[in-house]
Amino acid sequence: MASLRGALRSFGALRHCVSACPFPYKLSGTIRAFAVAASPPSKAVVYEQHGAPDQVVRVVYLPPVELKENDVCVRMLASPINPSDINRIEGVYPVRPPIPAVGGYEGVGQVHSLGSSVSTLSVGDWVIPSPPSFGTWQTYIVKEESAWHKIIKNVPLEYAATIIVNPLTALRMLEDFVNLTSGDAIVQNGATSIVGQCIIQLAKIRGVCSINIIRDRPGSDEVKEKIKKLGADFVCTESQLLLRNVKTILGGIPEPVLGFNCVGGDAASFVLKFLRQGGTMVTYGGMAKKPVSVSTSSFIFKDLALRGFWLQKWMTSDKVGDCRAMIDYLLSLVQSGKLKYELEPVPFNDFSLALDKALGKHGSQPKQYLKKSLLYILHWEH
Amino acid sequence: MASLRGALRSFGALRHCVSACPFPYKLSGTIRAFAVAASPPSKAVVYEQHGAPDQVVRVVYLPPVELKENDVCVRMLASPINPSDINRIEGVYPVRPPIPAVGGYEGVGQVHSLGSSVSTLSVGDWVIPSPPSFGTWQTYIVKEESAWHKIIKNVPLEYAATIIVNPLTALRMLEDFVNLTSGDAIVQNGATSIVGQCIIQLAKIRGVCSINIIRDRPGSDEVKEKIKKLGADFVCTESQLLLRNVKTILGGIPEPVLGFNCVGGDAASFVLKFLRQGGTMVTYGGMAKKPVSVSTSSFIFKDLALRGFWLQKWMTSDKVGDCRAMIDYLLSLVQSGKLKYELEPVPFNDFSLALDKALGKHGSQPKQYLKKSLLYILHWEH
Repeated sequence: MASLRGALRSFGALRHCVSACPFPYKLSGTIRAFAVAASPPSKAVVYEQHGAPDQVVRVVYLPPVELKENDVCVRMLASPINPSDINRIEGVYPVRPPIPAVGGYEGVGQVHSLGSSVSTLSVGDWVIPSPPSFGTWQTYIVKEESAWHKIIKNVPLEYAATIIVNPLTALRMLEDFVNLTSGDAIVQNGATSIVGQCIIQLAKIRGVCSINIIRDRPGSDEVKEKIKKLGADFVCTESQLLLRNVKTILGGIPEPVLGFNCVGGDAASFVLKFLRQGGTMVTYGGMAKKPVSVSTSSFIFKDLALRGFWLQKWMTSDKVGDCRAMIDYLLSLVQSGKLKYELEPVPFNDFSLALDKALGKHGSQPKQYLKKSLLYILHWEH
Repeated sequence: MASLRGALRSFGALRHCVSACPFPYKLSGTIRAFAVAASPPSKAVVYEQHGAPDQVVRVVYLPPVELKENDVCVRMLASPINPSDINRIEGVYPVRPPIPAVGGYEGVGQVHSLGSSVSTLSVGDWVIPSPPSFGTWQTYIVKEESAWHKIIKNVPLEYAATIIVNPLTALRMLEDFVNLTSGDAIVQNGATSIVGQCIIQLAKIRGVCSINIIRDRPGSDEVKEKIKKLGADFVCTESQLLLRNVKTILGGIPEPVLGFNCVGGDAASFVLKFLRQGGTMVTYGGMAKKPVSVSTSSFIFKDLALRGFWLQKWMTSDKVGDCRAMIDYLLSLVQSGKLKYELEPVPFNDFSLALDKALGKHGSQPKQYLKKSLLYILHWEH
C-alpha cells in the first residue's frame, strides 16, 4: 500500500493540482468532497518504470484535477493500445513521456464539465485530443479548451478513438511524398495492418490502384478476400512473389510509383522490386525487426528514393496544416462507410487481457506481426 | 584476317559511310585517296561482343567518314578509361551502345576539319563532346557542330578529357539534393575516388565542411594527408569508426546534412551514422558490391532519405540546364588550381597496359577499389 500511495503522489504531479488542492481521495468507492470546479478522480493505467508492459503497468486512481477557467474535463470513452504505446512503456520509443506516466496517446471522450470561460464546447460533446497527447488511458482528462477537437457523434466509438495514429498516417503517406493522380498505383507490404487497410481504401477513393503483399499464414486465401473487399486491386503472399517475376503478374495494373513498408527485410525488398523507375518507398514500421536492404543499382539505375514517415514527428512539423480538417474528413469517410478496419473492443476491466492480446500472447500468429495487425479498444467502465 | 575485315565492315556501319563511300583503306600506313570532305581513317578500341575487356577489345582502323556541311571532324587527344566504360564492355551497364562498338564515353580533341556550313568552330580549337557520347576511344570522330563544346586551352589535357563523368557528378550531387549553405557539412565514403576528391574541393569552395571516410590500407596516414591537402576537414578510416562513436569525434564540425556513398555495405552504414536528423544519403557507386542496409528507425525516427545519382540519366533529364556552363566552371577551377585530382597518363600504344591497370591487375589494392580510385588517360598517338 505504501508503494501505491507513493505512486499516486508521483502521478499527482502529472495532474497539476495535487499540491495546490490536497483533496481527500480514495482508491475506490465514492468521492466525498471536492470543489465543484474539479474533475472526478481518474482511473488510470500507469507505469512508474520502463519494462515489459505486463510487468510494469498497474491500474490506479489518480486524484481530482482543478479546472481553470479555460479547462475542459473530458470523460474518456475509448482509447486504443497501439504498438507505439507498448514501445513507450518498454522505453524503446524515441519520444515518450517522463515516468511515472499514464499510458496511451489517442482516444475519444465526452465533455464532462467546463471551466467558466469555455465557449466552444458543451457538456456531452464528443471530443478527441488534437494533437494527440500522452496519457489517454484514464477515465478523466483535464485540458485546455483548445486541446480538444469536437467531432461528429454518428460514428462508432472505436473509430473515433483511433482516427489519428493509423488512418491519418495512411492519409499523409498518400499525400506527402508523391503527387499521385487517378490511374497511378501504390504497393505495400503489411497490407493487413490498420494503416494498410486504410491505405487500400484511401487510395481507392483517389482512383489509385493498390498492390498488396501479405505474409504467408494459415487461411491466407480468406485474408486475401477480406483485403480485396476493402478495394485492393491485387493481393499476393510473399511466397507467391518468390516464385514469379513481379513485373509479369500485375496484368493491367501500372507499375507503382509509391510503396509503403511496415515490415523490413525481404518484405521491403518485394516492395522495391514492384516500384517503377524513379519510385519512392516510405518506411513507417519494422514488424520483422530486420533492416531494409537495397542494392546499389536500385539507387543509381532505378533511381529509387527511400524515405520514412513518423506521425508523431509530422505532428510537430510545419507540414501539419489543418490537422483537424483531416480528422473530420476521415471520420466522414467512416460515417459514409468508405473507411473500415478491424478492431477488437475490450472492456476496461479486462485491460490485462487486452494488453496480453496486444503483446501477442494470444492467437497463433507470431508476436511481431500481431503487434501491428490488431488494435484493441478499451471501453472504459467508470 | 578475315575476321578483322568482318569487324571493320561492322564498324563501318557505326561511321555512317562505308556503303555510300567504298574508299580504299589500309590497316596501317598512308591513306592514298579519299574525298577532301572526309575524316582520316580512325584508330579505335573496339569490341564485337561483351565480356572481359582484356579478352574482347581490339585496336583496329575504321574507314574514313564523309563530312556533311554541318559536321566537324575532331582529332581526339585524350580520353579516360572510367569504370563505367569497363562495365559497358562487360555488358553489365544498363545503358550501353549496341555492339559492335567503340569504347569510351568522354574525352577531348582538337578540331581537324570542318563541313562547309560550320561557323562557330575553327581548326585547332579544343572541343569535348557535350553531352558526352559513346565511342571516344578513337583517333578521329565526326559529329555535327552542335555536338561539340569549345573549351579553353590553358588547362592540362587530362583534365579537359575527364571533366564530365567525375567532376560534374560531384558538382551535381552537391547541388541537386540538399540546399547546402556555408557552414554546413557533408560526409562521404570512398573519399579517395576522383568524385570524392572533387567533392572535397567543391564543398570547400562553397564553405561546406567535408568528413571523409577511407578504407583501411597500408599507408593510410599518407592518404589522409593527401586528402587533407585537398581541403578535407576530417578524414578517418573505417576501422577508426568501429572503435569510436561517430558523434564524438567531429570536434567543431557540424553533423552533416548530406552524405555520399560509392561503396555500399558497412561503408554506407558509416555515412548513415554520421548524418544528422533529416539528412540525405546519395548513392552513386557500389565498389564493395554489397547492398546498403538501413535500419527501420533510421527512416522513421531519424527521418533519413536515401537517393541515387547517375550522371548518364541526369544528362537526359530536364534537370540538365546549361551543362556547358558547368563544364566551363569546372575547367576554370582547374585553371585556377582549385580543382585537382590524380590521373595516370598512358600512351595509346600502351592501351593494353592502361586497361590492365584499370582492371586492377597491377598494384596491391583490391580490384574493386582500384577500379574507382584511379583513372587512366590515353594520350593518343596518331
